[in-house]
Amino acid sequence: MARTPARTRRKNPSRPRTPGRPTAASPELRPRLLDAALACYAREGIAASSLRAIAREAGVTPALLHYYFGDAQRLQQVVVEERVLPAFDSVRSLLASAEAPADLINRYVCGIGNVVAAHPWLPALWVREVLCEGGALRELVLTRLAARVPDLLATRFKSAQRDGRLNPDLDSRLLVVSLLGLTLFPYASASIWRRVFRADDIDGALLQEHTLALLGRGLELG
Amino acid sequence: MARTPARTRRKNPSRPRTPGRPTAASPELRPRLLDAALACYAREGIAASSLRAIAREAGVTPALLHYYFGDAQRLQQVVVEERVLPAFDSVRSLLASAEAPADLINRYVCGIGNVVAAHPWLPALWVREVLCEGGALRELVLTRLAARVPDLLATRFKSAQRDGRLNPDLDSRLLVVSLLGLTLFPYASASIWRRVFRADDIDGALLQEHTLALLGRGLELG
Repeated sequence: MARTPARTRRKNPSRPRTPGRPTAASPELRPRLLDAALACYAREGIAASSLRAIAREAGVTPALLHYYFGDAQRLQQVVVEERVLPAFDSVRSLLASAEAPADLINRYVCGIGNVVAAHPWLPALWVREVLCEGGALRELVLTRLAARVPDLLATRFKSAQRDGRLNPDLDSRLLVVSLLGLTLFPYASASIWRRVFRADDIDGALLQEHTLALLGRGLELG
Repeated sequence: MARTPARTRRKNPSRPRTPGRPTAASPELRPRLLDAALACYAREGIAASSLRAIAREAGVTPALLHYYFGDAQRLQQVVVEERVLPAFDSVRSLLASAEAPADLINRYVCGIGNVVAAHPWLPALWVREVLCEGGALRELVLTRLAARVPDLLATRFKSAQRDGRLNPDLDSRLLVVSLLGLTLFPYASASIWRRVFRADDIDGALLQEHTLALLGRGLELG
């Protein structure tokens, strides 16, 4: 397939269109195409999501998708820049202004809950493309996301331990892993534990309460 | 491909062999073939692990693999029965005899560490074939594994809460999810967080100490 100068075309929306091209101004279409790509990525994996499969998901022709984004590789880059990174940036902004460690933890637990509510594709995409060996977004996490949230958290934890405001027996880096395991992981495995425990009564609010109770005081084992 | 009566053949090891058949008694070969299957499953996924790919992994011919196990589907069943389920049974046995909740938690955290050390393929297989939507082992978890470990743990937690021996603000079912997120998940994501945090100094013992400190007393936020 020849490479399409998608950007050039989009900069000249007023030029005459050839038959089969999308009709003028449909500002709601582009975000809908990105939604369809994310749904496909989360369900089938990025490698298996051809332009044809994503077009079917969106109910448009592959030619239209190609017109907007070029090839599947370019579409993936747009999805990462316009959807994946901004989702994590919203968590980072929330954390950056937190003061005390308790505030940081509260914001993190609620922040992940809000991000997942706003971006329901995120947990499945994270499992398939980050946690799975060979995942297509693993390098992205290592090169661009690590510096956004994990490094910020580990640095704050280390400093809280120095100030005597965080359990000194914890490892400040492993605590970042623990937090992911207590927040994003439960969302990513929800369809399993809901069936295992017949737990349709558990909603996001209960999950956050449970998580904050565990982080706050531990198991209080007797 | 015609179905091979593998079992019948294996019951008559003394009958004359045709050229290309495996030579007599090689008791170490069968477990090695199962290891190769597990390595392929964990790395490529079960659906993508053809007999040919697994044979290449094991350094044998596809015909030999077929001779031992029949087709790819039968091989998968053998791997599940002889490797996957026994791995979880070892955790269950460890938990079943635990007395106090503190003992149960200690055994669980150490038990998962030991299972992963003995079965290094387990975390990656769990991510790909259980956590991923459409994973080939998801039904197995729901139908056969759930009753082995998760139900046992949730029941024990509920009863510990009634006896005032476990933080009453926790949800006994979500606590099972939290424990997986604090044990199996860190192993499954180790190759990522080791790179993010340049954390080659963190070994299994430190991970277990950290996890038990977090579960025991929580963050002790100031």
